Amino acid sequence: MSDENRRPIGVFDSGVGGLTVVRAVRAALPGEDLVYLGDTARVPYGSKSPRTVERYSLACQRFLLDRGVKLVLIACNTASANALPALAAASSVPVIGAVEPGAESALAASTSRRIGVIGTLATIRSRAYETAIAARAPAARVVGLACPLLVPLAEEGWTHGPIAGLVARRYLSELLTIDPDLDTLVLGCTHYPLLADELAAAAGELAGRPIAIVDSATAMAQAARAALGEQAATAGRGELAIFVTDASRLDELAPRFLGERLATYELVDL
Amino acid sequence: MSDENRRPIGVFDSGVGGLTVVRAVRAALPGEDLVYLGDTARVPYGSKSPRTVERYSLACQRFLLDRGVKLVLIACNTASANALPALAAASSVPVIGAVEPGAESALAASTSRRIGVIGTLATIRSRAYETAIAARAPAARVVGLACPLLVPLAEEGWTHGPIAGLVARRYLSELLTIDPDLDTLVLGCTHYPLLADELAAAAGELAGRPIAIVDSATAMAQAARAALGEQAATAGRGELAIFVTDASRLDELAPRFLGERLATYELVDL
Repeated sequence: MSDENRRPIGVFDSGVGGLTVVRAVRAALPGEDLVYLGDTARVPYGSKSPRTVERYSLACQRFLLDRGVKLVLIACNTASANALPALAAASSVPVIGAVEPGAESALAASTSRRIGVIGTLATIRSRAYETAIAARAPAARVVGLACPLLVPLAEEGWTHGPIAGLVARRYLSELLTIDPDLDTLVLGCTHYPLLADELAAAAGELAGRPIAIVDSATAMAQAARAALGEQAATAGRGELAIFVTDASRLDELAPRFLGERLATYELVDL
Repeated sequence: MSDENRRPIGVFDSGVGGLTVVRAVRAALPGEDLVYLGDTARVPYGSKSPRTVERYSLACQRFLLDRGVKLVLIACNTASANALPALAAASSVPVIGAVEPGAESALAASTSRRIGVIGTLATIRSRAYETAIAARAPAARVVGLACPLLVPLAEEGWTHGPIAGLVARRYLSELLTIDPDLDTLVLGCTHYPLLADELAAAAGELAGRPIAIVDSATAMAQAARAALGEQAATAGRGELAIFVTDASRLDELAPRFLGERLATYELVDL
C-alpha cells in the first residue's frame, strides 16, 4: 500500500447528522481512516442562503484538505446541493456530494419514475435532486418539499410515536397532493433516516400502497469505494478523528447518528 | 432634544424572532429610531455553547455600537442568558437583556412563587432566569425546560392545531411533573409568544387551573423606557432600519414576528 493510499477520507457536515455517512463508509470501507468535521457552531445550514452555505462549506473543505485527505465526502445535503461546483473547483482531490448518489439510488428504486424528495429548505430550493435525476432520466418527474420540523424531531429523539407520526403525515400529505403517483421518497437530509419508520408508514398509509424509501448515506459509501479504486486502503486501521466547531449536546446527539458512543473529539475554530 | 437623544436604540437577535421586541419597543416608545440586527446566517444560537454565543453576540453588539446607538437591547434570550456580562463590559452605552425584565414580570405575576421557564437549550442550561429570580425572591422556586421543537413550529406557522397542541402538552407535562405547583410560565424565547395560546391551554389543562403566561418583550420595552429617562426621543420619527446576515425566508418569516411587512432591509457580513 502506497503512502498515498494511507491518507484519510475526509467527511464534513453542518453538524452531527453526517455521522450517518461515516457509519455507512466504515461499513463499506473498514480499512480507511476517516477525518470528520461537523460545523456544529453554525448548524443548521438548511435555513441559510446559497451564498452563506457555499462560504461555510469552503471553510470546512479547506480544514479537511489541510489534513491531507485523499477524498472529500460532503455528507450534508444542503452543502451538496448548493456548493458542490465551488467545492470541486477548490479541491485538489475528488469531491463526492450526497445528491448524485441519492439520485441514482432513487432511479434504481422507482418504477413509475415519479419521485418525491424531502429535505431542508436550502436543499429543496436548490432543485439539485431534480437536476441530477433529470440528467439521468429526462422523463422522470420529481417533486420536493422542505420539512423544517424533522431535524429537531430527530435530535430530540422523538423518532417514533404520535408527534412524529402527525408531522410525517402533514408533510407527506402535502407532497402526495402535489403528485399522488410517486412511488419513491428520497430522504434528502442526514437526519431523516432516524425517522424512516414513521415516514414510510405515513407515506404508505396516505398513498394506499408501499412507497420505496431511499437515503443517500449507503449510496455515498458505494460512490466513495468506486472513486477510490486502487487508492482504497485495504489494510488500514479504520481510525476515526472527529472535529467539531461547537461541542454543545455532542455526547447526547452523536451516538444517535454514529450508532456508538464518541471515543474522543477535538474542538476547532474555522 | 439634544443630538444625544436622537441617536437610535439598537436591538439585536440571533434571527428574526427579536422583531417581537421591536414591536413592543415601538409601541412603548413611538418616537425612537431603531436599528435591528438579526444574525440570521448563524441562527439559532440556542443550540450553541456559551463561548460561541458570547463571541457571536459581541460581534452583533459591535455592529450596533458602530452605528451610534444610545442603548443596546439583547432581544435574544440565549444571548442575554449567556453573554450579558461580556456585552455590558464591552459597551459604552447601557445594555438591557431579556432575562432581568422577564424575571421581574414573572415575580409580579406569581402568587405561589413557583415559576416555570421554557426556552432554548442554551438559555435553560445557563440557569439565568433562576439566578435573576433568586436575586429578587430567594424563596421562589424555578424549574426550566429546553423545548427545541417550538422555534421551528413557530417559524413553520403551525402555531395552532393538533401538532402544536401535542408538542406543547409533551413539554409542559414534563415541566409540571418536575413541579406540579407552578402558577406562572415564562416564555423565555422570542419565538414562543406565537405559541402562547396552545401553551396556555395545555398548561391550564394539565395543571387543572390557569397558569399565568409571561413574555419578556413588553417587559424589555418598559425597561428601555426607564433606562433612557430624559434621553428618550419624544419627537422623533420612529424609523426602523433592519440588517440581517442572511436573507433566506426573511420576507416570509419577519411579518409573523414584526406584525407587518418589511419595507426594506440590508444584508451585512459581520
